[in-house]
Amino acid sequence: MQLGMIGLGKMGRNMTLRLRRAGLDVVGTDPDAAARKEIEEAGATSAESLPALVDALPAPRAVWSMVPSGKVTESVLGELAERLAPGDLVIDGGNSNYHDSLRWHEAFAAKDIAFLDAGVSGGVWGLENGYCIMVGGESAAVQRVQPVFDALAPGDFFAHVGAGGAGHFTKMVHNGMEYGLMQAYAEGFEILRGSRFDLDLAQLSRLWMHGSVIRSWLLELAGNAFTEDGDLADLKGWVPDSGEGRWTLQESIDQDVPAPVLYASLMTRFRSRQEESFQAKVLAALRNQFGGHAVKKA
Amino acid sequence: MQLGMIGLGKMGRNMTLRLRRAGLDVVGTDPDAAARKEIEEAGATSAESLPALVDALPAPRAVWSMVPSGKVTESVLGELAERLAPGDLVIDGGNSNYHDSLRWHEAFAAKDIAFLDAGVSGGVWGLENGYCIMVGGESAAVQRVQPVFDALAPGDFFAHVGAGGAGHFTKMVHNGMEYGLMQAYAEGFEILRGSRFDLDLAQLSRLWMHGSVIRSWLLELAGNAFTEDGDLADLKGWVPDSGEGRWTLQESIDQDVPAPVLYASLMTRFRSRQEESFQAKVLAALRNQFGGHAVKKA
Repeated sequence: MQLGMIGLGKMGRNMTLRLRRAGLDVVGTDPDAAARKEIEEAGATSAESLPALVDALPAPRAVWSMVPSGKVTESVLGELAERLAPGDLVIDGGNSNYHDSLRWHEAFAAKDIAFLDAGVSGGVWGLENGYCIMVGGESAAVQRVQPVFDALAPGDFFAHVGAGGAGHFTKMVHNGMEYGLMQAYAEGFEILRGSRFDLDLAQLSRLWMHGSVIRSWLLELAGNAFTEDGDLADLKGWVPDSGEGRWTLQESIDQDVPAPVLYASLMTRFRSRQEESFQAKVLAALRNQFGGHAVKKA
Repeated sequence: MQLGMIGLGKMGRNMTLRLRRAGLDVVGTDPDAAARKEIEEAGATSAESLPALVDALPAPRAVWSMVPSGKVTESVLGELAERLAPGDLVIDGGNSNYHDSLRWHEAFAAKDIAFLDAGVSGGVWGLENGYCIMVGGESAAVQRVQPVFDALAPGDFFAHVGAGGAGHFTKMVHNGMEYGLMQAYAEGFEILRGSRFDLDLAQLSRLWMHGSVIRSWLLELAGNAFTEDGDLADLKGWVPDSGEGRWTLQESIDQDVPAPVLYASLMTRFRSRQEESFQAKVLAALRNQFGGHAVKKA
């Protein structure tokens, strides 16, 4: 089995290393020469560009796109749609919006190229632990690249979850849940830290991994973080979001399904990126207007 | 080591069984004769009443109260304060409000009776897995009953987390976090269920236990529930709360710490117990008033 890997960032590079360990042949490409060198040292072949990668693969080709979602993925998939031949197969392993993936399923089908949308979870730990992979698309296409999935996501780490789009849809909701879980822990730890008791957040995180109802992998990571820096003094409370949270909320709106926790989790991230809150200024101004209440001047 | 166990409900009874397996002598009491018989069959002694239990224990006594928090715990601790002697020791293992526990620390100290507040997590699974126990109080008192903690909460399952009150405080926040975690999963599963894809929630729950960022014990339990009843058709969406969630929010208010996810989680439980929403009626009435918008008649 030979696979083309487009994108050798921390995900694509580690996945290539894991595929090599399983004995699969990989041709990888990335603008970063150091990343190309690293996979070569692991026995993979590198290509300097996407066209070179397509040329290096024997037909029928199987190509995995592992690049940032949005514009970069659109560009890569568009180029693949131009350069690949009928009978080839493309997997988008990025965090693409499932509406885009539904569109690509149609576009590739029109060219008789198989397409799979794969949600991949596991982060930098996937190299050692295996990745959790949820795939949407046709069963025949899944079967063609099953050795790739087996290497990345052994046994129960893999599931074919539904028709085209289902892989990225389930990964989207998975990440939405992740926002809520993280925020629940975060609020609790802030309340623990602010208490009259001189609590050790690292101790509590480790304790709760043993037999408590809230044990989880995220809690284990929190324990690691608090062990390194008990008060997180070296961090700024600034939290980006990469799209899946807001798409999950958009889906909840499209479905008329209440999602107050996922909503509050995203709003907290928005607030974390504001140096100053204009809405808090509005509140201060109004309290001052109607009641002469104290304000703080900028 | 001999321990008195007051309360042989599902927690106290299983804890007694686990203590017996570790070879500790237990005298247990409960109004329920069947529960008393069950611990006798496990080699424990039963007492028909709290006074009989106190009489059956050699001084200095160690007594664990494992009864519902609030009035029942207040009654049991009050009776123990009357009947125990200086040098005895009491552990409250219930989900008591930590403000109450702070008061009991003072009350018992005034009588020279040691007191420990123990938060216990693990539910019905604790018998086999071990309980997660977080204890507040003086180190000397903890050491006196360490064999009891070792039997219930082996090794890393136990921590002495701080001074008096810290055990129930940390358990309170633990449970508050639990509300938020549960609600994050719940919202995600409702969005998954409502999608255009015919998703198998049991399959996804099991898949995400393998290498995904959101793997947790609660997700494992969700997988069990969806495997038994994929659409939860046999359940009504009615969710009680036993206090720790609202106390955690009260603490967040006392500390001026935002806790939007924990708050929304509790509000969702409140709404789940309403047959009809009066506030939704108010919204309907107002939309009708200002815009002549459609209403549904009761």
